[in-house]
Amino acid sequence: MTRARARGIRESEAIRLLATRLTRPRADGVRLGIGDDAALLEPARGVLVWTVDSCLEGSHFERGLLELGDVAWKALHAAASDLAAMGAKPLGAISALELPPRFSKRELDAFALGQGRAARALGCPVVGGNIARGERLGVTTTVLGVARRPLQRDGARSGDDVWLLGNVGLAAAGFALLRSGRVPKDRAGRRAIDAWRRPRALIREGRSLAAHATAAIDVSDGLGGDVRHLAEASGVRIVLEERELVRSLPRELFAIARLVRREALELALEGGEDYALVATGARAKRPRGARRIGHVTKGRGAVLERADGSPVELARGFDHLAR
Amino acid sequence: MTRARARGIRESEAIRLLATRLTRPRADGVRLGIGDDAALLEPARGVLVWTVDSCLEGSHFERGLLELGDVAWKALHAAASDLAAMGAKPLGAISALELPPRFSKRELDAFALGQGRAARALGCPVVGGNIARGERLGVTTTVLGVARRPLQRDGARSGDDVWLLGNVGLAAAGFALLRSGRVPKDRAGRRAIDAWRRPRALIREGRSLAAHATAAIDVSDGLGGDVRHLAEASGVRIVLEERELVRSLPRELFAIARLVRREALELALEGGEDYALVATGARAKRPRGARRIGHVTKGRGAVLERADGSPVELARGFDHLAR
Repeated sequence: MTRARARGIRESEAIRLLATRLTRPRADGVRLGIGDDAALLEPARGVLVWTVDSCLEGSHFERGLLELGDVAWKALHAAASDLAAMGAKPLGAISALELPPRFSKRELDAFALGQGRAARALGCPVVGGNIARGERLGVTTTVLGVARRPLQRDGARSGDDVWLLGNVGLAAAGFALLRSGRVPKDRAGRRAIDAWRRPRALIREGRSLAAHATAAIDVSDGLGGDVRHLAEASGVRIVLEERELVRSLPRELFAIARLVRREALELALEGGEDYALVATGARAKRPRGARRIGHVTKGRGAVLERADGSPVELARGFDHLAR
Repeated sequence: MTRARARGIRESEAIRLLATRLTRPRADGVRLGIGDDAALLEPARGVLVWTVDSCLEGSHFERGLLELGDVAWKALHAAASDLAAMGAKPLGAISALELPPRFSKRELDAFALGQGRAARALGCPVVGGNIARGERLGVTTTVLGVARRPLQRDGARSGDDVWLLGNVGLAAAGFALLRSGRVPKDRAGRRAIDAWRRPRALIREGRSLAAHATAAIDVSDGLGGDVRHLAEASGVRIVLEERELVRSLPRELFAIARLVRREALELALEGGEDYALVATGARAKRPRGARRIGHVTKGRGAVLERADGSPVELARGFDHLAR
């Protein structure tokens, strides 16, 4: 932790609080956590997999719909999701905080509690960070992991199946529900809101893919756009099959979609922030828990094949599609 | 690079530009650079040394006195300086950018050029990043390195000498000079301004310390405060000797100090951003280029021992001292 400019809570106090909440002495592989110039991790075997993700108030979230603990949770899982997509095991995380003026000790504590919980759920200790004064709350999280055989986006081959792990659309449904002001007490509503507030990076699922898949990506911006990224990186054409995709969607999605006047399929293709994984691989190699939702062919681009066989180009956002 | 919200320049354009300027294919140890979910680095031998640093417009810099290339340079060297302090060799850097509205392609290019130059100077390739829309320019840089025997802050022992590598005060002098509106054309002025605009993380010097020193820290917030951090972490008392310290200061510092109506010693103790290294170790083990500026004793805290032998407590900032 270096060069803090936080007001409200003093820097030394903030670092002490974070160290108490986050540093697990002798956590697996951690030689030195928060408090020195840098964190130290024991030598690691395998290819190093390393990423960063920013979560900024006003751009990525508003504090009205999220508790501080949720922001912390989401920020860590969003960053770790990139490791999941590459089949990596997390070694640790470092988070750089921008704290707005008058951010209190109580607020920082709520944040740190959420971050600590997320770290334990992921098996990814927070080993360091930085505090700076900003205009609004911001969390930039860098996550480091290892993989024996990391998955990339560029390995999909014609003839592969397309697999989905985890849910798509549910987080977007939960967000729409919260924004509508309704707070349903039924299981479907709670599950959708949880999916948005407390998404889970699919680390275990990603590692199970590593030995079987040819390519993978995590769905952070919507299935349609992310599948297109995968197709472009691999130089292939990806065909999502509407019938298979609809079959893979959770029952709750249809209920919430009706409530918020959206189509379930649209939420599934456009909605990000579930942090599902999409992968490609040979049919015979499909791992447990992976649902088939399409196939890879020669060509370029990404389409949704309607139940009647007609293809619809998947643009970056599904709202650009002709319906 | 994921989930950009930058306006002005489009995300895809921005990522292409950064990849062109920054990705050196087959750079030592880099298996995969900008463009996938995460960066991949070849397996590394040694303890992993990992840190993050934020550089935010309005909090850490103003764009009036710095070119965009300078901001990029400073951000990378400031982060790498934490690795220098631990005697580590950089493997790579990842930078998360917050771009203000209407940040242009030309501006991003100027930034990327500076970052690319800094990366080459450091031997620390930029292998990934994130782009987000912010209210003002922000750069959060995470740097990863390896060390066989990393130096920490907590190893100083009574009887050790205190060593300085690099300069202190010169960057603060350059900053004061720029703020005064004077742009001197003489060598001293240019050198001070360069020290502030284009500081250099002392990677080589840090690695030369690793085998000889008992503890080290980089001077990012001012010699007085950072020496105090080292003393606190080690549970010892550090005595800086005024006579030795003054002797170790560069000649230019005295000239500029007069010009900006400050004392050279004050600039040296308070001024940050030179990214000098302070280390402790046995007298016989002092490496080449390290100047002796004090000693370690039993006790607590950090003091400046005046030429007449009287001690002055070193507070967090030298302006808190009784003169």
